[in-house]
Amino acid sequence: MVFLNGEFIKKNQASISVMDRGFLFGDGVYEVIPAYNNTLFRLDEHLSRLQKSLDAVKINNPYNNQEWQQILTQLLVFNSQENQSIYLQISRGADNKRKHSFEHLTPTVYIESNPLIPKSKSTLMAGFSAITQTDIRWNRCDIKATSLLANVMYSQQAKDNHVEEVILHRDQQITEGATSNVFMIKNSTLFTHPTGSHILSGITRDLVLESAKACQIPIQEVAFSTQDLNTADELWISSSTREIMPITQVDKKPINQGQVGQYWACVYQHYQTLKHA
Amino acid sequence: MVFLNGEFIKKNQASISVMDRGFLFGDGVYEVIPAYNNTLFRLDEHLSRLQKSLDAVKINNPYNNQEWQQILTQLLVFNSQENQSIYLQISRGADNKRKHSFEHLTPTVYIESNPLIPKSKSTLMAGFSAITQTDIRWNRCDIKATSLLANVMYSQQAKDNHVEEVILHRDQQITEGATSNVFMIKNSTLFTHPTGSHILSGITRDLVLESAKACQIPIQEVAFSTQDLNTADELWISSSTREIMPITQVDKKPINQGQVGQYWACVYQHYQTLKHA
Repeated sequence: MVFLNGEFIKKNQASISVMDRGFLFGDGVYEVIPAYNNTLFRLDEHLSRLQKSLDAVKINNPYNNQEWQQILTQLLVFNSQENQSIYLQISRGADNKRKHSFEHLTPTVYIESNPLIPKSKSTLMAGFSAITQTDIRWNRCDIKATSLLANVMYSQQAKDNHVEEVILHRDQQITEGATSNVFMIKNSTLFTHPTGSHILSGITRDLVLESAKACQIPIQEVAFSTQDLNTADELWISSSTREIMPITQVDKKPINQGQVGQYWACVYQHYQTLKHA
Repeated sequence: MVFLNGEFIKKNQASISVMDRGFLFGDGVYEVIPAYNNTLFRLDEHLSRLQKSLDAVKINNPYNNQEWQQILTQLLVFNSQENQSIYLQISRGADNKRKHSFEHLTPTVYIESNPLIPKSKSTLMAGFSAITQTDIRWNRCDIKATSLLANVMYSQQAKDNHVEEVILHRDQQITEGATSNVFMIKNSTLFTHPTGSHILSGITRDLVLESAKACQIPIQEVAFSTQDLNTADELWISSSTREIMPITQVDKKPINQGQVGQYWACVYQHYQTLKHA
């Protein structure tokens, strides 16, 4: 079952008008919310970010937080798996006529939930590979918008190159991954690009920082460069569904001799306790 | 009547799956093709640019040029107006599962046609206003993609400011408008941003250059700056549906004392002869 505009229906019956501005203009925003043990994880933070995205593109939020919680909880029940990943999209809605500017429309709300199977620690301990690419995206990456063609193209490059992620750099500074935030350990300090218009302020990014504090790792929210990668001690990516993944090879060169590092192990462990708190 | 995936159907019956990647990712490309006197205008050029966009994002072209011509001509007949504007969108199609990277899918093809009523010369002679904004779009503006949220936001700013267009600049160089190409006359020479990844290579842009040649105006495909606007003799925008519009005020300051210029008049006149050639 999926949720579409107020109703729970079968996914293969969920259709929208071709005039939906989500289809015509990529004019929408979204969230991906994990649920562990049938409990929505950091829901308030996801709903708060959803509100920020909606405000940035001037779409009215069709529900209040209590209504969102009811809808999402109902969807969890329908899908019954213990761990799920909820995908929630709001587009500006369907107009009668295609034009770039917009009127006040009834937003389209689509939500689906899928089983969430995080990778095991032993799988993660093998490490993952990445490649780097110039960040060609727009300058409002802080909006979690559905105009995602650049991210699609990067993710396809990752797939074609048999790597986990494409790590992006703008003016030689690492911004984030195609679908993740990026972290580096160097001189026993955690570095990650500061929030702003060049990265998405990830909910999991915040949890990584929270976990790093618990592990007593000094944090610098300061951009680091592609050059810095050559001497990085550890490199990680994070997202709601991938959690925290250690990257042990970038552009075919090893990080930390290709070994997963000790800081990752501590942060990963603490993150697991947050999930089940 | 509209065209959706091989069938001519009523517009209010034209629906797509929520899993369409056009809806989920803005993963599609489009064209807007004018038809004058029931004849498609510069169809070959539009189909050639469509192919370039499809190639850039790795979507297979579902039809050859002859098939496109048949479909579009049929749509013109259904809609019967003498002058029409065809909107044609191809998305990558619907997958079973939402993921950024893609498989080989059957593309979704949606086409609609609407009456095209170009503004009269007397209306155009009154001139139009624009505002300038920093260009925050991605670095592949040469792809005519449906990930258009930045353009939506700019067009809304134009509407909110009661102006015809938002003219964009990147590093102080004028690139193009939110939904148009931009031209400046200075020292009896026509300037416009060169083609490349920062602008769409407009079909109407080419026709403006062709018309300028016919008017014996020297052409410089060289970027000009926001500073240059202060001393511009004429400023125009062009698009398939708006044709060539004179901008006589930018950021509340007049261009050419707020008067439409003589070069515009010649280029406009020649463009009209091309339309009906």
